[in-house]
Amino acid sequence: MFLYRCVFLIAAILFSASVAKAADPLPSWNDGPTKDAIEAFVTKVADKDGPDFVPRADRVAVFDNDGNLWAEKPVYFQLLFAIDRVKAMAPDHPEWKDKQPFKAAIEGDMKALAASGEKGLLELLAASHTGMSSAEFQKIAGEWLATAKHPRFKRGYTELVYQPMLELLSYLRDNGFTTYIVSGGGIEFVRNFSEPVYGIPPAQVVGSSIKTEYKLVDGEPKIMRLPEMNFIDDKAGKPVGINQHIGKRPIFASGNSDGDFEMLEWTTAGEGPRFGLIVHHTDADREYAYDRDSHVGRLANALDQAADRGWTVIDMKNDWNQIFPAAE
Amino acid sequence: MFLYRCVFLIAAILFSASVAKAADPLPSWNDGPTKDAIEAFVTKVADKDGPDFVPRADRVAVFDNDGNLWAEKPVYFQLLFAIDRVKAMAPDHPEWKDKQPFKAAIEGDMKALAASGEKGLLELLAASHTGMSSAEFQKIAGEWLATAKHPRFKRGYTELVYQPMLELLSYLRDNGFTTYIVSGGGIEFVRNFSEPVYGIPPAQVVGSSIKTEYKLVDGEPKIMRLPEMNFIDDKAGKPVGINQHIGKRPIFASGNSDGDFEMLEWTTAGEGPRFGLIVHHTDADREYAYDRDSHVGRLANALDQAADRGWTVIDMKNDWNQIFPAAE
Repeated sequence: MFLYRCVFLIAAILFSASVAKAADPLPSWNDGPTKDAIEAFVTKVADKDGPDFVPRADRVAVFDNDGNLWAEKPVYFQLLFAIDRVKAMAPDHPEWKDKQPFKAAIEGDMKALAASGEKGLLELLAASHTGMSSAEFQKIAGEWLATAKHPRFKRGYTELVYQPMLELLSYLRDNGFTTYIVSGGGIEFVRNFSEPVYGIPPAQVVGSSIKTEYKLVDGEPKIMRLPEMNFIDDKAGKPVGINQHIGKRPIFASGNSDGDFEMLEWTTAGEGPRFGLIVHHTDADREYAYDRDSHVGRLANALDQAADRGWTVIDMKNDWNQIFPAAE
Repeated sequence: MFLYRCVFLIAAILFSASVAKAADPLPSWNDGPTKDAIEAFVTKVADKDGPDFVPRADRVAVFDNDGNLWAEKPVYFQLLFAIDRVKAMAPDHPEWKDKQPFKAAIEGDMKALAASGEKGLLELLAASHTGMSSAEFQKIAGEWLATAKHPRFKRGYTELVYQPMLELLSYLRDNGFTTYIVSGGGIEFVRNFSEPVYGIPPAQVVGSSIKTEYKLVDGEPKIMRLPEMNFIDDKAGKPVGINQHIGKRPIFASGNSDGDFEMLEWTTAGEGPRFGLIVHHTDADREYAYDRDSHVGRLANALDQAADRGWTVIDMKNDWNQIFPAAE
């Protein structure tokens, strides 16, 4: 009798916990086919008695970052960081006043900056992102992220993350998934905020990288950032980066541009249950509306092929009842 | 009264669990200063009320593989795999019969193979390790590991892992550490057995790598292995690989050769509690005895500096009461 009542007490505790868990895990997602598809997939792969069960170790989910977990307009936030960094460094570089692309960056002339092309962009990145140690870069990037404001929304950049995607990341983790970022952005830039903002630790961030070198500086060991590209984690580079870092093929991939096409293809062409998810920016009022004609985050091929490949397309305007987290 | 008895029952269950846990977690380690130093370190960083507490997220432990988690004599096991692979492929390559380093590999002439130098070694690796997809390579390596036997011990290579190190890996994980392999060996070779043998999932393996390419082969997406080095995870490359993959500085590092010197230095020069561990091969009877004069796993500089740097040196003969797991 005693044991019976004890078991009953424990059962009551467990039951109340399961009721609490049954609250909507995706409150910022409107009811409809997109939300249904996500929930049906997660439920079936986590159902250990079902035909589509996937062991926890194989529940790997990958997410692009720019335009997928946080906004990417007017241009990639990391580029805005590079520009601000060049402005801050300008007093020590008088020669930049008459030299592109630095002149354009200092004057905030985005048109001239764009005209400097890929070569100009790389010069800007080299000047702003290299020559210091990894730890020093983290400090510089962290200070910028803590203070800089977005020109339109007047909020810090790490506040311009998509609330529905934060909920999706948590929902996946609560169901035994390991969540990774697979970004075209710089791996050390994204790692600066991935854990506090997304709950994704540095080791679960895959990104573009520059070469680094281990060396003693005044007797102190440092990882120094060199002005040379190491890896570009975009397009066909994304499956390569995933294979290199994770060593497993994901079963869930989420992206928003043609730069994510190969990652979606690689993920969803595998055997067993697979899920491909595309964020389609359709909300000019609350965020932005763009796809095939955009320079940043161009989405054409992946959008055209989504239906044939069974990828789920998020209509931002209609599927999300909230875009960014509530301001604090 | 009911609640009191219920609490008592739960307390009794928890107590018996803690007693079970209090059994020696390192039974293959002899009592003495080496074992004491390891246990003292783990206890203090996990003690949340102590001055040396380290949060779980920062309890990162890195382990070299060859000669540190498994044996590495007569030569690195991956080289034995390459030689066996070339022998298996030889019928399709009649031209190899008169061409070094293939002739040496086919004939098992290790002296001629060594004479072919680094260039010869790279040719051997290219022929045996590239040209297939990542998945196909996993299959080939897995078949070899499942069947090949070590010339001296007549056991499979994955049985030639160090029982005390298996216990140490588990002990660290039980105390909130995340354990990584940081190997000079090929990342995809080590990933083939890291999870079943060491309990270390593929994403927690850092290693040397060749370049890979994502491409459609007969319409099927594959990661193809190319005959070009991507990254050498040895010496000063180890801290670089750690920073690239893990994005955090470890607090515990274990190695056995001068190839691990920079990893040990990088780990232990950081602030707060740090632990450097060196496996010194001193047991010719049960395993091998070698250090500064060995071609494979040469240990000189790291051994000479261990005392000054506070690194703990394992004397295999005296500190370990068992080398390999009991034969099944």
